[in-house]
Amino acid sequence: MKLTGPFQQIVTLNHLPLKGKLNDESLEIITNGGIISDNGKIVETGDYQLLKQKFPNSEIDFIENEQVVIPALVDAHTHICFGGNRANDFAMRNAGKTYLEIAESGGGIWSSVKHTREASEDELVNGILERVGFLLRQGITTIEIKSGYGLNADEELKMLRAIRKAQEKTKATLVPTCLAAHLKPKDFDGSSEDYLNYIIDEILPKVKEENLATRVDIFIEKSAFQPEESKIFLEKAKQLGFQITVHADQFTPGSSRIAVEVGAKSADHLEATIDQDIELLANSNTVAIALPGASLGLGEPFSPARKILDKGGIMAIATDWNPGSAPMGNLITQASVLATYQKLTTAEVLAAITFRAAFALDLQDRGIIAEGKKADFITYETNNFQNILYHQGSLKPKSIYINGEKI
Amino acid sequence: MKLTGPFQQIVTLNHLPLKGKLNDESLEIITNGGIISDNGKIVETGDYQLLKQKFPNSEIDFIENEQVVIPALVDAHTHICFGGNRANDFAMRNAGKTYLEIAESGGGIWSSVKHTREASEDELVNGILERVGFLLRQGITTIEIKSGYGLNADEELKMLRAIRKAQEKTKATLVPTCLAAHLKPKDFDGSSEDYLNYIIDEILPKVKEENLATRVDIFIEKSAFQPEESKIFLEKAKQLGFQITVHADQFTPGSSRIAVEVGAKSADHLEATIDQDIELLANSNTVAIALPGASLGLGEPFSPARKILDKGGIMAIATDWNPGSAPMGNLITQASVLATYQKLTTAEVLAAITFRAAFALDLQDRGIIAEGKKADFITYETNNFQNILYHQGSLKPKSIYINGEKI
Ligand SMILES: [Zn+2]
Ligand SMILES: [Zn+2]
Repeated sequence: MKLTGPFQQIVTLNHLPLKGKLNDESLEIITNGGIISDNGKIVETGDYQLLKQKFPNSEIDFIENEQVVIPALVDAHTHICFGGNRANDFAMRNAGKTYLEIAESGGGIWSSVKHTREASEDELVNGILERVGFLLRQGITTIEIKSGYGLNADEELKMLRAIRKAQEKTKATLVPTCLAAHLKPKDFDGSSEDYLNYIIDEILPKVKEENLATRVDIFIEKSAFQPEESKIFLEKAKQLGFQITVHADQFTPGSSRIAVEVGAKSADHLEATIDQDIELLANSNTVAIALPGASLGLGEPFSPARKILDKGGIMAIATDWNPGSAPMGNLITQASVLATYQKLTTAEVLAAITFRAAFALDLQDRGIIAEGKKADFITYETNNFQNILYHQGSLKPKSIYINGEKI
Repeated sequence: MKLTGPFQQIVTLNHLPLKGKLNDESLEIITNGGIISDNGKIVETGDYQLLKQKFPNSEIDFIENEQVVIPALVDAHTHICFGGNRANDFAMRNAGKTYLEIAESGGGIWSSVKHTREASEDELVNGILERVGFLLRQGITTIEIKSGYGLNADEELKMLRAIRKAQEKTKATLVPTCLAAHLKPKDFDGSSEDYLNYIIDEILPKVKEENLATRVDIFIEKSAFQPEESKIFLEKAKQLGFQITVHADQFTPGSSRIAVEVGAKSADHLEATIDQDIELLANSNTVAIALPGASLGLGEPFSPARKILDKGGIMAIATDWNPGSAPMGNLITQASVLATYQKLTTAEVLAAITFRAAFALDLQDRGIIAEGKKADFITYETNNFQNILYHQGSLKPKSIYINGEKI
């Protein structure tokens, strides 16, 4: 039993609905508060002095200068398992070069595939752990990681094994997702439909056998997989027992509705989603995940987060951290900028990077500071929780707690 | 005499034109390079081994893991001298509240004026030094700082004295600017023209007397000062011997042309500049300073940096760090995002935050790594200078050199 505190403000995010818009007035803020944790779970939160009296034998984790606590953050969409570096792509794209010119000079997604295939499993593990460390320092303790730069059975399995190996070396929770359907690799002999069948027949059974992932993703887009074939693929993956998530509507609409139809846990991107499909999403339990890092990395418009919330949808925000289109990896910067362009309340943003993001990962044990939840929370040396988003990523947490322990 | 190195890449920014667009191929990159410095100046740069032979008695400043060097950065537009905090404004604005609602709840620029007036000179100095520290850690060693939250003679002078006092306590170069013409304070009894005359008659002579600033700024905008009266004000300020800079075309066009007409060192903002005025700017020596931090802080479009460069103008980028509209203060994040939305080359961005920004401050002794220049440079633990912009602000410099000394 441990009492952590006192804190000037505990922003619990408790008692908020899973769906729809949120006023800042709805935020529960415990002042002069403390957190009792035990065995990695939160036992109770409330007034620090009262908790001290109620749990007289608890170990005291006395907090000196960190006055604000919020739940630890959740990043529900990343591609941080990869080899190589695409800084030159980024420079060329900004300099106005076309996708083709970049590919011809050795860049583009195929460069990530090539370097990921060339990397050993241990090299991938080291890359993952370095990036996990960067995310952890931002207070992100739950991190989804996709495969998708292997694009054949051996290499996709290598990536997923690297994620599992990285999990053994970090206290963060890593949630692996098989994205073999990132694109049809140019060395695959057959149609995109053939490749999707190959994933179903040759990759997913092995993923299941080794218990490497319980989630399957696909990139539905003109340049990748088409809606019809994708829907068939997702239904088969679901029959195999996988949860579904979809890269949807990034440049062209028409795929978020498939995510809803197959009962996906989330539909991610949505920069091009049309109003009719926003309605479908909002009426479902599929989480709409905005990826402002991709907008900021490509110079594209933001996802319609405001509309999704107004229609009653579940809106989360993730980094999409990847070597191509979203190389920043700073969740608070991205979430805060999205809030400014999309007019989101502080409550909506905090929910989007905690319990609503956790719901997309089927992790309902975290993302709020409340009895029985995983004791993952983060503290800031500031006197007002509003400063977290206000500084647009410049204010970093002071301490990160996982399972009630400072890491 | 000191030899710093060896570095895998010294990006000197030498031999680049002051005006117009830049190809990345035009960047001078010295490989396996070193920097000889003496008395705060750069004496020579070139091959590390050759420099070692040529200057055998030089002190060796051996660099282990930092492989990339660029000139130290210049932030030519900040408002980091202020009291109070406006996180609640930011939250309210994102939540869709109007300017009026924010002002009525005690926010808005008047809140910064109130808290700055309430602050002691020493409190202001501490605030400045904290923010200067944050900028220094990004590799920014030259920082312009405006007054403009005092808005009467005593309080404007207090701000400028605080900047001078802060200068005594930091190795960074602080460049003060008098922005008494930020807006007409609501407690001033008279017209905006009267207030501008008050600045000319009562404030600027004292600024000159105490040698507190050599630069004068004005906010020309529908909500602040009008073009006609501003032009008369700026001409008078110029006659008093001040250099001119202008907050121009942020929301409505029409003021950047005044900056050009009065021979301003820079016209800053330019989000709303019309094509005709871009031509005027481009044909002048007035630096066009883009402030992407204000766009990201307000959710507004970016300045037309690409057009300005294509027309042959001098384009710089600054943070505009201030408590209201630009609370981030991360120059590389802002510059990199601007590059993505405006299609800027790496060379154009690096020039915009070094020697082109320094030119706006009339400091032609810095911003490139070349013989005779101030030995302000920064090193990164990375093997490719492109990674600096690629990571959109997430990669921080390892060492900061000012006058040849690591700080
Ligand atoms: Zn993605
Ligand atoms: Zn400004």
